[in-house]
Amino acid sequence: MPLMEGIEDSLGAGHVSTLLCDGRGDPIREQHYITELLNRRVDGIVVTGRRTDVRPSLGPLPVPVVYVLIRSAASSDLSVTYDDHQGTELAINHLLAAGRKDIAYVGGPERHQATRTRREATDHALATVGLTLKPTDVLIGEWSEAWGRAAAALVAKRPQGQRVDGVFCASDQIARGVVDGMRDAGIAVPEETSVVGFDNWDVMAEASRPPLTTVDPCLAKLGEFAASQLLNAIEGRELGSGTLLLPCELVVRDSSVPVLTRHAEAASVA
Amino acid sequence: MPLMEGIEDSLGAGHVSTLLCDGRGDPIREQHYITELLNRRVDGIVVTGRRTDVRPSLGPLPVPVVYVLIRSAASSDLSVTYDDHQGTELAINHLLAAGRKDIAYVGGPERHQATRTRREATDHALATVGLTLKPTDVLIGEWSEAWGRAAAALVAKRPQGQRVDGVFCASDQIARGVVDGMRDAGIAVPEETSVVGFDNWDVMAEASRPPLTTVDPCLAKLGEFAASQLLNAIEGRELGSGTLLLPCELVVRDSSVPVLTRHAEAASVA
Repeated sequence: MPLMEGIEDSLGAGHVSTLLCDGRGDPIREQHYITELLNRRVDGIVVTGRRTDVRPSLGPLPVPVVYVLIRSAASSDLSVTYDDHQGTELAINHLLAAGRKDIAYVGGPERHQATRTRREATDHALATVGLTLKPTDVLIGEWSEAWGRAAAALVAKRPQGQRVDGVFCASDQIARGVVDGMRDAGIAVPEETSVVGFDNWDVMAEASRPPLTTVDPCLAKLGEFAASQLLNAIEGRELGSGTLLLPCELVVRDSSVPVLTRHAEAASVA
Repeated sequence: MPLMEGIEDSLGAGHVSTLLCDGRGDPIREQHYITELLNRRVDGIVVTGRRTDVRPSLGPLPVPVVYVLIRSAASSDLSVTYDDHQGTELAINHLLAAGRKDIAYVGGPERHQATRTRREATDHALATVGLTLKPTDVLIGEWSEAWGRAAAALVAKRPQGQRVDGVFCASDQIARGVVDGMRDAGIAVPEETSVVGFDNWDVMAEASRPPLTTVDPCLAKLGEFAASQLLNAIEGRELGSGTLLLPCELVVRDSSVPVLTRHAEAASVA
């Protein structure tokens, strides 16, 4: 929904109407909607999906098309999504800045691109400072709090020397589960182990105890940008092609750095 | 979204397209979209909103209109929503059947109809069996886990004899907070205090520890029913008027009745 709001905000300024159709990942349903939208004389189409995975192109259409969040398999299409790699680097560099050295990665299902990209980017960011992501510190599971709790229990059970002091989670649901699982195991977050999530889903991140430091994919900005590209094309300017990546932002709450440390940092900056 | 899926499922069978526009509660934006939809030759309009509150009527339009979830202020319009009163009765009767006698109600903001209706229905259901909802057992706050935790702390601080053994919460977010707050205060859920939520929001209800017993407003069914009424009207049959209430269902998980009791019940039914 933040994505949709961003799209509308960008278009609304010029009093353009936004119609939303849900293809549910079903090509027949999708084709039906495309035909309908063209029959109803829309000026352009934004294609989106729940994840950043690659999807088949809709092929050439009589109106401009922009893919947002989800990416088109055709390099002749324009896709706009967030920079998963850069977002992960923000998270890992934040954990490193907080003095963490033994970092684990807790991901969702392997079949999702986000799980794979965030693991690779974690590995890369650690390698940059001479650290490695050990295979035993890569925990692949599902997008749920229950999985986060299970992953925390697995890590907490290890002998003292093999534990981790930082955990980067591929979603806020996982991160909230990790935080709860750590507390259950008697490990203090953030004092003993820092936890960082991904999504900045306010309901999850703010209700977590402590609230979650997390990577914000800035979906509203993504929607605004995609819609502005579409509007340009509708007005006759050339639509680019390939994949454009917009930067993520880090939102620091209490799960990664002790509150006193954060206040001291803010004071020293001021 | 379950509502939208229900609407689409009902219409999709006849290959009718569903276009979604977000008025964001802004009358000017809404009027703009209504004009646009009529210009694009839609056959009917479903008006919805995030809550069950009453909203102004769109007035007479050249196509049939059904209000769903949200209700129109005009009795000449057809509104379809869930039966908040009956849903609350399901929750309270379940708590009573679980042997609970000192029941508290934790609501959201007073300005929302749902907060008021659920409090009245709680009062009514308790009165039916000769119990009363004491003013001190009505806790009005906000739609958040933090408020649920605060409410649980308030109740738990009371002297032993003034505590409650059952809590009905007007949302799953509140209920999850109450469950966590009770655990923090050393009160066992469901053994010492049963907790029931409202919404059956799977992400909240299933991640809660224990998972939440909750009232399901059956939004998909609501959407299906509203769309079928609209389809009838599009096909020339008369559209009713007034407010139709569809029943809620109770989903029993572990926050209300000890697991062994539930298994024993299931066995005795079998």
